[in-house]
Amino acid sequence: MIYLDSAATSFYKPEQVEQAVCRAFHTIGNAGRGAHAPTLEASRVLYRTRAKLAQLFHAEHASRIAFTANVTQALNLAIDGLIQAGDHVVTTVCEHNSVLRPLYKKQENGVFLTIVSADENGTIDPQDIQDAMRENTRAIVIHHASNVTGNVVPIEKIAAIAHRAGALLLVDAAQTAGGIPIDVQAMGIDVLCFTGHKSLLGPQGTGGIYVREGLSIPSLLVGGSGVHSFDKHQPTDMPTALEAGTANGHGIAGLEAAVDFLLETGVETIHAREDALMRRFIAGVREIPLVKLYGDMDAPLRAPIVTLNLGTADAAMVSDVLWEDDEICVRAGAHCAPLMHQHLGTVEQGAVRFSFSYWNTEADIDRAIQAVRNIAAEYEEANA
Amino acid sequence: MIYLDSAATSFYKPEQVEQAVCRAFHTIGNAGRGAHAPTLEASRVLYRTRAKLAQLFHAEHASRIAFTANVTQALNLAIDGLIQAGDHVVTTVCEHNSVLRPLYKKQENGVFLTIVSADENGTIDPQDIQDAMRENTRAIVIHHASNVTGNVVPIEKIAAIAHRAGALLLVDAAQTAGGIPIDVQAMGIDVLCFTGHKSLLGPQGTGGIYVREGLSIPSLLVGGSGVHSFDKHQPTDMPTALEAGTANGHGIAGLEAAVDFLLETGVETIHAREDALMRRFIAGVREIPLVKLYGDMDAPLRAPIVTLNLGTADAAMVSDVLWEDDEICVRAGAHCAPLMHQHLGTVEQGAVRFSFSYWNTEADIDRAIQAVRNIAAEYEEANA
Repeated sequence: MIYLDSAATSFYKPEQVEQAVCRAFHTIGNAGRGAHAPTLEASRVLYRTRAKLAQLFHAEHASRIAFTANVTQALNLAIDGLIQAGDHVVTTVCEHNSVLRPLYKKQENGVFLTIVSADENGTIDPQDIQDAMRENTRAIVIHHASNVTGNVVPIEKIAAIAHRAGALLLVDAAQTAGGIPIDVQAMGIDVLCFTGHKSLLGPQGTGGIYVREGLSIPSLLVGGSGVHSFDKHQPTDMPTALEAGTANGHGIAGLEAAVDFLLETGVETIHAREDALMRRFIAGVREIPLVKLYGDMDAPLRAPIVTLNLGTADAAMVSDVLWEDDEICVRAGAHCAPLMHQHLGTVEQGAVRFSFSYWNTEADIDRAIQAVRNIAAEYEEANA
Repeated sequence: MIYLDSAATSFYKPEQVEQAVCRAFHTIGNAGRGAHAPTLEASRVLYRTRAKLAQLFHAEHASRIAFTANVTQALNLAIDGLIQAGDHVVTTVCEHNSVLRPLYKKQENGVFLTIVSADENGTIDPQDIQDAMRENTRAIVIHHASNVTGNVVPIEKIAAIAHRAGALLLVDAAQTAGGIPIDVQAMGIDVLCFTGHKSLLGPQGTGGIYVREGLSIPSLLVGGSGVHSFDKHQPTDMPTALEAGTANGHGIAGLEAAVDFLLETGVETIHAREDALMRRFIAGVREIPLVKLYGDMDAPLRAPIVTLNLGTADAAMVSDVLWEDDEICVRAGAHCAPLMHQHLGTVEQGAVRFSFSYWNTEADIDRAIQAVRNIAAEYEEANA
C-alpha cells in the first residue's frame, strides 16, 4: 500500500508516538485532579506538550497553548469567542468548512462577512484582502495552506493588513502545523488553530489553539476546570479558559512524542523532503496530456499537496482505480472546501488529491505517476 | 501503588484497550474522508463502536450515538442546543460544574434555573423536583450518580416527572456509564451524556451523547462533515449534527475494545464486584470514630464512591498522607461540585474521595481502611 493521503491524516508516524500512548496507559491519571503520582504525571505530560508546542510555534509561553479535540473545535472557539454581532470579517473562497460554517453561523447572527476570491490557480492576492477591509473589520480568518491546492498564503502580509486596520488575524494551520515552519510572533498571528493528527504526526483526537499574549477568548465550552471550582464561570486564564473537562491525556502523550520528533528532526528538514517528493510528482504528472492540475505548482513555498483531474473523468472513479489497481491511497471529492471547488469548476467532477509524507519514497512517487499515466491511457482509449 | 481514584479516571483498563489503540496506528486513516482501506477501516471502527454503545445503553440505533471529546462537551452541546431564552430548567445542588456552568451561562442569557436541594446525605427527593416544575420547564438536567457521594438518582421517577410536564430529561452519566446498567429507553432518558475514560474503561479524549429518536440537537460546533459539503450548515442528521471535524479514531478504537469487554463481562458483574469492594470499605471505615461519611451509605444502589473526612483534618493533607505513607491514590478537594460541598459544609475542609475499580482487590481495601485508621489515630494523638 502507498499512502498518499497525509493531508487527511498522517498514517506514517514516528513509532515513538504509539509507544508514548501505550506507556500513558500505565502512567497517567486525570491531570490536575489530585496529587498522587498518576495525576501528577498526567499534568506533567500536558505541561511538557504545551511547552514543546510553544517552542515549535515560538509562542510567548506554554500557557498560550490550549488543547482541543481537533482544529475544528479550535476554530469554533476562536470564531465564536472573538467575533460578535455587528463585526465584519474577511475570509476567502479557499477555506475549509471548519472556517466557513462557523462564519456562516455568525453571519446568521448579525456578523458581516466578505469572502475574497482567488485567481484561476486558487491564489489569494493580499491586495484583495486589503480592499475588503472596513472600519468594523474585527478579523481576517484565513488558512495557512489550502487543503485543495497546497497553495500557501503569505501570512506576514495578511497580518500587516489586519493589524493596520486594528483587526485580528486568525489562522487555520490544519495543513501546515508541523510541516511548514510557523513562528506566530514573527508572522504576526493572533490566533493559530491546529490539529494534532496531520503534519504534527500525533494521534487523532488532539489539536489546539495558540492565543497571543494580551488576547483572551471567552469560553464556548464550560465545565470542570480542576481549579476555581467555586466560581460560577469557567476561569478566564489561558489555557483553562479554553479547556473544560478531562483532556485527552493519552492522545496528548502521543502528541508530545510527535513534537519531540519534529523538534529533533527539524520542520525545515521534513518540509524539504516532502517538498522534493511533491515536486517530483508534479514534474511527472504534468507531462501527461490529460492531467489538469489545480494550484500554483511553481510557487517556491507549497504544502505537499497536489490535486488534479484527468480530462472529465470522475474524481471518485479515478481514486477508486488508484486504490483497486495499485493500492494507492488518495482522496477524491470536495475536500470540505465547497467554495474552492465552485471557484475551480470542480463541483460535479470533484478532484483527486495526492498528499505526501516524510516517509514516502521516490519509488512511491514514481509508482503513483505511472498509475496516473495508466488511467489516463485507459481513459483516452475509452473516449477515442 | 493502590489506585482508588477511578471516579476521576479509570487507571486499570482491560489490556485489549491499549492493544486496540496501538493497532489503530497501523490500520486507520481519516473516517469518512476517502474510499481506500485505512479510511474505510476508520469508518468501520466508528460505526462498530457506535453500535456497541447503542447495545450497551439500549439505544434505538447506532446513529443515535455521537462521539464527543468528553462528557463536558456532550453536556455543553445538549444544554446549548436544547434550552433557549425563556425556558425554565430544573437541576440539583449535587451537580458537577460540567452541568452547572453551562446552565449558569444559559441563565445569563434569559433561561430560568431552579436548583433543587438535597437532604443531609446529599439525597435528592423526586418530590422536590416535581414541586419545582413549571409550565415553561423545558428540561430536567441531572446526574445519574453523584461524583461526591456516590448516591444514585432514581432516573425512572425523574423521567416520569419530566415527561408528564412535557419536559426533556438530560442525564449526566459521567459516573455510571459502563459501571451501572443503563437502558435509555426503559429509563425514559431523552439525552444521555457520557465519558469514555471512567467506568467505560476507554482512553481519555473519548465520550459521547445519546439523543433519543425524534429529538434533534442543533449543532454548537460546526465544520467539515465529510458529507453534504456544499451545504452552508452542518448536516442535521445524527450523528453528523454533533460531530464536526476529524473524530478521535485512535481513542475510539480503544473505546470499542473497552465496550467489548463490558459487553462480554456484563455491567451487572462489574457493578457487583465494585459494589462489594465499596461495601467492605464502608464497613471498615465507619467503625473508625473520627470518620464522617458523606452520602447514603446504605442505599441498595450506589456508585462505587466513598467520600469522607477525619474530624476537621484538611482533606488535602489526608490524601497527601495516604499517598506518601501508603501509595494510595485518592482525590481530595471540591471535586468540581461546588454546591454539593456548600450543602455538605465541606467548602473549607474539602473531602477525601475513595473510588473503586473491578480490578481492585480485597487486600487493597483492607490496606486503605488500615491507612485511614492510622491517620485517624495520629490525628487524635495530635489533637489530644
